Amino acid sequence: MKISGRNYIGYRTSTQNSKTFNTFNPKLNTPNPWSFNEASDEEIDEACSLAEQAFLEYKLIPGVRKAEFLRSIANEIEGLGVELISVYTQESGLPEGRAIGERGRTMGQLRAFASLLEEGSWVEATIDTAQPNREPQPKVDIRKKLFPIGPITVFGSSNFPLAFSTAGGDTASALAAGCPVIVKSHPMHAGTGELVASAIVKAAEKTGMPNGVFSNLNSSGIEVGEQLVLNPKIKGVGFTGSIKGGMALHKLAGERQEPIPVFAEMGSINPVVVLPSALLENGENWAKQYASSIMLGAGQFCTNPGLILATKGTSLDSFIKHLGKEISALESSCMLHPNIHDNYEKEKKELSGQGGVNMVVENEKNVGPNHARQKVVTVNGSNFLKNSKLQREVFGPFSIVVRCEDTNQLEQVISKLDGQLTGTLLGDSTELEKYPKIVQALQSKVGRLLFNGVPTGVEVCPSMQHGGPFPASTDSRFTSVGTAAIRRWVRPITYQNWPEHLLPVELRDENPLEIMRLVDGEHTNRKI
Amino acid sequence: MKISGRNYIGYRTSTQNSKTFNTFNPKLNTPNPWSFNEASDEEIDEACSLAEQAFLEYKLIPGVRKAEFLRSIANEIEGLGVELISVYTQESGLPEGRAIGERGRTMGQLRAFASLLEEGSWVEATIDTAQPNREPQPKVDIRKKLFPIGPITVFGSSNFPLAFSTAGGDTASALAAGCPVIVKSHPMHAGTGELVASAIVKAAEKTGMPNGVFSNLNSSGIEVGEQLVLNPKIKGVGFTGSIKGGMALHKLAGERQEPIPVFAEMGSINPVVVLPSALLENGENWAKQYASSIMLGAGQFCTNPGLILATKGTSLDSFIKHLGKEISALESSCMLHPNIHDNYEKEKKELSGQGGVNMVVENEKNVGPNHARQKVVTVNGSNFLKNSKLQREVFGPFSIVVRCEDTNQLEQVISKLDGQLTGTLLGDSTELEKYPKIVQALQSKVGRLLFNGVPTGVEVCPSMQHGGPFPASTDSRFTSVGTAAIRRWVRPITYQNWPEHLLPVELRDENPLEIMRLVDGEHTNRKI
Repeated sequence: MKISGRNYIGYRTSTQNSKTFNTFNPKLNTPNPWSFNEASDEEIDEACSLAEQAFLEYKLIPGVRKAEFLRSIANEIEGLGVELISVYTQESGLPEGRAIGERGRTMGQLRAFASLLEEGSWVEATIDTAQPNREPQPKVDIRKKLFPIGPITVFGSSNFPLAFSTAGGDTASALAAGCPVIVKSHPMHAGTGELVASAIVKAAEKTGMPNGVFSNLNSSGIEVGEQLVLNPKIKGVGFTGSIKGGMALHKLAGERQEPIPVFAEMGSINPVVVLPSALLENGENWAKQYASSIMLGAGQFCTNPGLILATKGTSLDSFIKHLGKEISALESSCMLHPNIHDNYEKEKKELSGQGGVNMVVENEKNVGPNHARQKVVTVNGSNFLKNSKLQREVFGPFSIVVRCEDTNQLEQVISKLDGQLTGTLLGDSTELEKYPKIVQALQSKVGRLLFNGVPTGVEVCPSMQHGGPFPASTDSRFTSVGTAAIRRWVRPITYQNWPEHLLPVELRDENPLEIMRLVDGEHTNRKI
Repeated sequence: MKISGRNYIGYRTSTQNSKTFNTFNPKLNTPNPWSFNEASDEEIDEACSLAEQAFLEYKLIPGVRKAEFLRSIANEIEGLGVELISVYTQESGLPEGRAIGERGRTMGQLRAFASLLEEGSWVEATIDTAQPNREPQPKVDIRKKLFPIGPITVFGSSNFPLAFSTAGGDTASALAAGCPVIVKSHPMHAGTGELVASAIVKAAEKTGMPNGVFSNLNSSGIEVGEQLVLNPKIKGVGFTGSIKGGMALHKLAGERQEPIPVFAEMGSINPVVVLPSALLENGENWAKQYASSIMLGAGQFCTNPGLILATKGTSLDSFIKHLGKEISALESSCMLHPNIHDNYEKEKKELSGQGGVNMVVENEKNVGPNHARQKVVTVNGSNFLKNSKLQREVFGPFSIVVRCEDTNQLEQVISKLDGQLTGTLLGDSTELEKYPKIVQALQSKVGRLLFNGVPTGVEVCPSMQHGGPFPASTDSRFTSVGTAAIRRWVRPITYQNWPEHLLPVELRDENPLEIMRLVDGEHTNRKI
């Protein structure tokens, strides 16, 4: 398929605006050949109006048919074949293996939501049957289930051109919920975005979804996204990116007359707390695992471990030495874009220059263009406590090891941390019992708590929580990964005294879908 | 118990500020004898600090012990006996029967949350067990449940001195979730508030809850509430009241560095759509029922039916005549406060003076002080469509009947409505099938959809949704009534590869609480 550079407004493509931009190949350090037309004001309005119209029809389509749509998207993405992989690698600098893996994850996510819809219990059907003889007043029949909230804007993320972008988790969860989606394509991988958008549109047409259930808009700046967030037809926003970007959208949404949920997954330094036994018994192994975790995807994961906390001593000295050795032995790799690379170098330098920060190791070999030179530094606990800048996320393969005086200071450091996506404890299980305050302090800061592992590698499953206290995300009550992500885009509606045969099928006595429901306080999949 | 007028800061009472205010008896049209000390800045800070401290302990207390606390609050409230009823009626102008009924509902809510905790499944335990042999990568064990988010500020509402105030649904749901609560007591019923606060504090002491799990602050103005919303230790806000008040808090929270959920349940005119058969067969009966519903509690319910929509004709004329007759036959009753009464008269007059609005009936008899004179007006569909002022809530026994040209205009009128708590359809079930667009249009505007009933009278049960699209509430994804209200104050935390015996009890293999869990995709209460 030829990349057209056009905007996808429902089932048609459009180029009203002559302003164009190109994507960039960071490995070759040259622009890619494809140019993209910025979406015009009219195109944005049209996409929103189509989405609003499409919502009226799309929300009434049964779950099993929406599931067909999602499965069809996955198949169409697969059908893009090597071209998708090739454009992905040219636009991201990431290797082919990563592209193939991320494509698999993206298709897996779509199919997981399809399965969720096919199973059907996700609507949280809740039924309280009538009690006509209740005293002092009879009780009428009341039944509730979840319904979609309306058109959603999704911002593609820079670091996951597939799994958190055009047909990523935000889009998949919103479409599964019954909400049309307008994607503001990420300008760094607009070609990958267009290919995936074409797959979604094809799937929508093939499975008979309404025109406007999906649109994909190009933009190299912030105006298109701003207009989408402010458009009254938009009822929710999904975003993965920087704290600055996420908070700007959150603030903007606050200026709307009608408040809408803005779900922004932002920054995290993913603290790793190394308890004494981990260093005594297993220090070399952890050093090796963490060197790999820091380097994974050129350090461009939101779960990248940027902060390692431990108590000082010879074991820690030895761990740091090993970590430096292991990370030095790894090849540096290409970042997503020269801007991201420049920013990495700048931030790395600024944090390295803070008071009390000492270098452990930095890659100073010759590397290819836009390659991220990994670096590990140390600082003592007192300096860390004094300087909140040291908590800033450096997006790339950079990590700070904090040498704490003792476990009290360790707990103090944890208590001073901002909210995080993840927190990890390394040690043995008796230490979790020995240091309950450390465990509690870390738990209160994170969305996901790990024991003896690395935070990179986010499993897509119902039990996953990807989202933590601010500034990890704008609303820690929701996740952006896993099937529970659907909850962001739905609201309950209650039917009172409604004719049984006209209720939504999930609320009927017969329970024809055999879903799990809460009936008169009891969880059951039986009929009434 | 003597009403002291003091602030409750955890287990102690305090009066730092010499500025005081009194509550008012609207029936006698005189101030009540009790004066209340405004909370000082220091008292606010102390309550917040205590709440933050208390949270560390309170969140770890098992559900069954929190349930004891909630049940003990209900008992202590009952123990306040006739004094509570007497102060309630003196501060609200509402009759004793209502006070007793609302007390019953308040205790019922507390006990419903206690039962929810005792049953335990509400934590949404979700478990995906390890698959060490999975290809290409092994899967680690991941488990998730809900945890409380932190100290919550609750604003007492004017119209429910018990059920939506000091120990009302917001407080009960937050305490059940594991969140300490600081109540900004409503100045119109600060005495009722103090009595209930004393009951909560007594219950907390008796059941061994940490100091600071609850505080109650007095204020006649807006500053105390503003400071609470801006305090970084506060992690969520519950509010029931006007659109103006709710949006001011929402906007204020938007100025915080850390975004927090503000759950404001605001205005609603609760449209009632009368389909032709309802008027043909049952018009007199509906006129009688709606006259009572409009008059209930002096029209001071958030579910008061302020808008009746129907197609013009002799049946509608006859319904309007009967509605006028029935409502005229009812005694007007006392409103909560002279300010509320003044506002009612002002708003009623302003809406009655809009173009095309005709009076059906207004009570012009001699009534007691602050009594609400009921009024019903009509307007045709075209005038209603032209004038958005006619959608404004008039807080009191006032209702507009809109005569639509036909069912098309009826649908148009519904489509123009703002979000609502409830929407009602009167008719027979074949009409629901005959007018699917009307049903869909109404459904998209409301949190609760009723058939053949009146919207007043909100059942407290798991299937209740009290909260609708803006401006009915700031976040339609949540309810403020019913056990699902607990969801507002919790966030999921995931444990990855955690030692089984150190997991929260709800996530352990044995499932000792026998709760319903989602284990490897299956809803089950079995152990693993």
